[in-house]
Amino acid sequence: MGAAILSDLATEILIPVCAVVGIAFALVQWSLVSRVKLSPERQTSSNNSKNGYNDYLIEEEEGLNDHNVATKCADIQSAISEGATSFLFTEYQYVGVFMVAFAILIFLFLGSVEGFSTKSQPCTYSPDKTCKPALANAIFSTVSFILGAVTSVISGFLGMKIATFANARTTLEARKGVGKAFIVAFRSGAVMGFLLAANGLLVLYIAINLFKLYYGDDWEGLFEAITGYGLGGSSMALFGRVGGGIYTKAADVGADLVGKVERNIPEDDPRNPAVIADNVGDNVGDIAGMGSDLFGSYAESSCAALVVASISSFGINHDLTAMCYPLLISSIGIIVCLITTLFATDFFEIKAVKEIEPALKKQLVISTALMTVGIALVTWLALPSSFTIFNFGAQKVVKNWELFLCVAVGLWAGLIIGFVTEYYTSNAYSPVQDVADSCRTGAATNVIFGLALGYKSVIIPIFAIAGCIFVGFSFAAMYGIAVAALGMLSTIATGLAIDAYGPISDNAGGIAEMAGMSHRIRERTDALDAAGNTTAAIGKGFAIGSAALVSLALFGAFVSRASISTVDVLTPKVFIGLIVGAMLPYWFSAMTMKSVGSAALKMVEEVRRQFNTIPGLMEGHAKPDYATCVKISTDASIKEMIPPGALVMLTPLIVGVIFGVETLSGVLAGSLVSGVQIAISASNTGGAWDNAKKYIGLVLRSMQGHLAPKAQSRTRQL
Amino acid sequence: MGAAILSDLATEILIPVCAVVGIAFALVQWSLVSRVKLSPERQTSSNNSKNGYNDYLIEEEEGLNDHNVATKCADIQSAISEGATSFLFTEYQYVGVFMVAFAILIFLFLGSVEGFSTKSQPCTYSPDKTCKPALANAIFSTVSFILGAVTSVISGFLGMKIATFANARTTLEARKGVGKAFIVAFRSGAVMGFLLAANGLLVLYIAINLFKLYYGDDWEGLFEAITGYGLGGSSMALFGRVGGGIYTKAADVGADLVGKVERNIPEDDPRNPAVIADNVGDNVGDIAGMGSDLFGSYAESSCAALVVASISSFGINHDLTAMCYPLLISSIGIIVCLITTLFATDFFEIKAVKEIEPALKKQLVISTALMTVGIALVTWLALPSSFTIFNFGAQKVVKNWELFLCVAVGLWAGLIIGFVTEYYTSNAYSPVQDVADSCRTGAATNVIFGLALGYKSVIIPIFAIAGCIFVGFSFAAMYGIAVAALGMLSTIATGLAIDAYGPISDNAGGIAEMAGMSHRIRERTDALDAAGNTTAAIGKGFAIGSAALVSLALFGAFVSRASISTVDVLTPKVFIGLIVGAMLPYWFSAMTMKSVGSAALKMVEEVRRQFNTIPGLMEGHAKPDYATCVKISTDASIKEMIPPGALVMLTPLIVGVIFGVETLSGVLAGSLVSGVQIAISASNTGGAWDNAKKYIGLVLRSMQGHLAPKAQSRTRQL
Repeated sequence: MGAAILSDLATEILIPVCAVVGIAFALVQWSLVSRVKLSPERQTSSNNSKNGYNDYLIEEEEGLNDHNVATKCADIQSAISEGATSFLFTEYQYVGVFMVAFAILIFLFLGSVEGFSTKSQPCTYSPDKTCKPALANAIFSTVSFILGAVTSVISGFLGMKIATFANARTTLEARKGVGKAFIVAFRSGAVMGFLLAANGLLVLYIAINLFKLYYGDDWEGLFEAITGYGLGGSSMALFGRVGGGIYTKAADVGADLVGKVERNIPEDDPRNPAVIADNVGDNVGDIAGMGSDLFGSYAESSCAALVVASISSFGINHDLTAMCYPLLISSIGIIVCLITTLFATDFFEIKAVKEIEPALKKQLVISTALMTVGIALVTWLALPSSFTIFNFGAQKVVKNWELFLCVAVGLWAGLIIGFVTEYYTSNAYSPVQDVADSCRTGAATNVIFGLALGYKSVIIPIFAIAGCIFVGFSFAAMYGIAVAALGMLSTIATGLAIDAYGPISDNAGGIAEMAGMSHRIRERTDALDAAGNTTAAIGKGFAIGSAALVSLALFGAFVSRASISTVDVLTPKVFIGLIVGAMLPYWFSAMTMKSVGSAALKMVEEVRRQFNTIPGLMEGHAKPDYATCVKISTDASIKEMIPPGALVMLTPLIVGVIFGVETLSGVLAGSLVSGVQIAISASNTGGAWDNAKKYIGLVLRSMQGHLAPKAQSRTRQL
Repeated sequence: MGAAILSDLATEILIPVCAVVGIAFALVQWSLVSRVKLSPERQTSSNNSKNGYNDYLIEEEEGLNDHNVATKCADIQSAISEGATSFLFTEYQYVGVFMVAFAILIFLFLGSVEGFSTKSQPCTYSPDKTCKPALANAIFSTVSFILGAVTSVISGFLGMKIATFANARTTLEARKGVGKAFIVAFRSGAVMGFLLAANGLLVLYIAINLFKLYYGDDWEGLFEAITGYGLGGSSMALFGRVGGGIYTKAADVGADLVGKVERNIPEDDPRNPAVIADNVGDNVGDIAGMGSDLFGSYAESSCAALVVASISSFGINHDLTAMCYPLLISSIGIIVCLITTLFATDFFEIKAVKEIEPALKKQLVISTALMTVGIALVTWLALPSSFTIFNFGAQKVVKNWELFLCVAVGLWAGLIIGFVTEYYTSNAYSPVQDVADSCRTGAATNVIFGLALGYKSVIIPIFAIAGCIFVGFSFAAMYGIAVAALGMLSTIATGLAIDAYGPISDNAGGIAEMAGMSHRIRERTDALDAAGNTTAAIGKGFAIGSAALVSLALFGAFVSRASISTVDVLTPKVFIGLIVGAMLPYWFSAMTMKSVGSAALKMVEEVRRQFNTIPGLMEGHAKPDYATCVKISTDASIKEMIPPGALVMLTPLIVGVIFGVETLSGVLAGSLVSGVQIAISASNTGGAWDNAKKYIGLVLRSMQGHLAPKAQSRTRQL
């Protein structure tokens, strides 16, 4: 067996230090972004900045009144920020009620199992030891659930704050050049990425250490209580993603259909009443929602790994360093991402539009390559050369290099998924160009090609995920899969940075349009945005891939806990579970799509009403009523996120209670394998359509040719 | 245990008699259809018919030259028929080569297992008995494989022949009234349904009896050799569906995009060069392809049930009547369907458009109700009150009423699937009306609502299938599932009749348009066609539902034969199989959709070329070059059906050889559960879009209102 090289004390210092370094780095980036001043009135406070500011004016915007532009940008920004904040607060109110109810349920459920016993009891996995009483477990689980939910909320909220802080600044910087704008958007993405990764790690670490004060050497109880953290995070993620997603898509579809298709005004035109709602949507859906989502996956995979470790030799031997292996991976991940970020912001400079996508791609490659070394280092330092891992009741002997392979394969599978996603959603490659080309023959071929592209893009990611599962499972059972998921998420700070960069650029373009800035600015932000669509798809690819692995790890944890030794497809209970489970993602998608559709219809009617009843709106004399559109999106998403959320939360409960754990196992496995496919294909179809539209725009601008424009409006919306 | 009431001799007589009655009934229907004369020149041969014919002229077509119209219809019909025949022959040539190769492979594979031994060997399931040598099994399996493939070809081909025989006759009858036209189209559908059901049963029955001459009392070997029949049928079905499907959709999309969208000429306008290819496509795809498909499911489920029965107490005790239970169910099914058909053709008369859909629905209900009695009768007469069924190595005791429930639940699940499909795809209900309504806001909301509708329509059918699996499996293991599939398919003759009726009506409308007949005729055929779209979706629902059950039964047979006792989701081999298997339907769909897309692009270019280069084409002075369009569809579908076909055929071989039977089990289960969902949702989305288009047409005609017409063209094509 042997012991780890890294001492327990070093581990206890290393993890919080890395987390704090991450937070500090995020704050430095934030302060760099904030150097771009939005309010020319306050110029007196900083003479340097004023001079700097005048520079751009001379370069780019000679014909326009600088004061007006900056003020307009600031106004639009604050409108977007207010809309996003107000939506998130409304959402959090509703979700908060739900979370409290769910927390009480968890407490009652876990507590009642042993009749709220306050007496110590024999441990589940080591019956010869004494573990803490059920009441304590119920309390601590509930606390960690709330902690997870709150951290998820904070992650999403901070992301939204920095995004709405950065959008107008990106617009203003775009006047200086595409490189400057890119840096602002990317730095802001990095703020979100590092805050989320570091906060998630720090809160988890602190919780573990505080819980340990009570639990002492009952590691089994401690880490089982900690799993609440993951559950809290992913429950919030569910509502954040669904609510934010309905919001953003309803606003987007509504704004485009009336504005672009019917009224023939440009995207993000300030005359469009839904334009603020559209830009708010990017922030609450693609930033806050996605942040909550990735935090959920991250928390779940950490907790899944920790709980398996606690009943493996690490936990049994009280080997703290080895036990904290998942946290150490995340800690090194923060440092690796920090170095990677410098490559984009400081070591190289973006000078032309065509350098943006390669720069973002380089981020993925650099972080993966460095992280491989990081994982090797952590594995060598933190793990004994050989140990045992809990494997459905038995203990499996694992070598440290085997665990390295598990993590590394997850990491590299993430890179492969990222590249495949990029290939299928970037307009630099033939798939998207084919989709764009198919618009020559109308919307129908566009729909066919787009859906086919999404279906096709599933193939390689599934093989990559299957590879992770095979390696992870073969070497280290469910622990291997959990750490493979962690490997994929270890570069989460970089992944989130390039992911959040997209909606920020999107917003920046919107602000440029609304502030009436020159078309050259809009072209630059569009170029940033096209790269952003691809990176957003990459981010979704990571989220889906890691979610698949995490779900499997959790599934394994569930099966272990439910004391099922086999889930045999050949039994009717399991098979009907499998087929019904495979149906659930369709049910869920039908609900959310229908919600988006009806909310979009309402939005369209409201926008039409405003165009028809507000005199002078089309001519630009009158201001539209943005607030009503924001309210429609808000109300629709709040109302509509309940049923899909309930479906996801209640199905396991209902199936488990009525049909038993075997059928439930089938349902979980079925929805997992079917959901991954729908998720990847839908995400890539959407990304491809979006970029096909941008590609057509590019070709049109350069050739003044004729490509069916009516296809453009539709591509955006799926 | 006890014996069956029905004697072996009675069984031996009953089955072929029912089959022959079915064939005779089909021929009677055919002769009734042929009474409608297409060629006015030959009027002299039948004075009655001439008088009858003149009647319609007075009623409906006073302004038009009757001779011209009938001649035109006959010309168009023969063009369609020639196109379809030539395509099918080309297809069969290619598939024939493949089938021979596959037959040789089967022979070599089965023969080589025991080194082409000519010595008798101990039986697999009853080692104390002696079974026929491996060489004989290889030969007979190959023979039954070829028989199955040939029967499938004949089923599809005959269906196409009657459909292309009936289409123009339906058009001509539409001049007399919608009821008359309905009867012709429905009778022709019945010809196909009864020929297919009866032929399938008869060939299988004869093969069993011929094989028995050699096999004697080695029932295990006999029925294992017979499984080749199912494999042959479903292999052909694969190519028939894929090839025909690519053909019809490429032609359809190509014709509509240029004709309706760009040139603004009506659907099926004779000036459109792709119009013949479009009508040919209905016959080779929706008639021949679907016929092969349902025959495949029917043959597979019969064979799966027979092979399980042969190693159960029926086979062991040489109880012929009980053994033939699956065939007896199908026999009674033919009689039940015969009675049901009379309700539509003779007992009641369709007088108005709005009676069509209820009449077809009544067919489903009547056949299901009667069949329930039929199943009860067969179960009571043919089965001993108690018997044992092979269940993964063990023998499970089953009561005859339990088996009745298995079959009945399959039958009624089919009805439920039918009704749900009708609800989601008929324009009489809110889902399709909502989709039509969403076109007000453009193509985008239409796509969103259409896809959401398809996803939602999966829910109830999946619960119905899950119910069948649960009942079937709980009562009689894999045999229960196989007979549940047979129950669903027992009313196949009626199912096929209402299914084939759709494309015939579609063709009839096309011929009316091309022959320049009055709009009142076209309106009648459109009404028939709208009902046909719904019934086609119902037919697909049946096909998918039964295919799911059959696949599961075959999966069970495979697992039994491969001596796997559990397929545990918790092992990495199975789980990666599951997730990769769930991906395969996406891969397959991506291939076929891409094929349709590229073939449609070629078609569009050709149609555009003809419109641009043939002078006087738009004005109707010149005839387009139909043959080139037919050739494009033919070449594309022949070429493009190979890769998806290869994917389906080779995956099991490759996975099995490289990764072993456990992974293969996972792959099969994964693709089964994922494929069902995609199939149901895609089929219903397509049906709903198609009928939403027709609904918009109806509303437009009645209100002269304004609903986004551009959405119409696209809805047709998915």
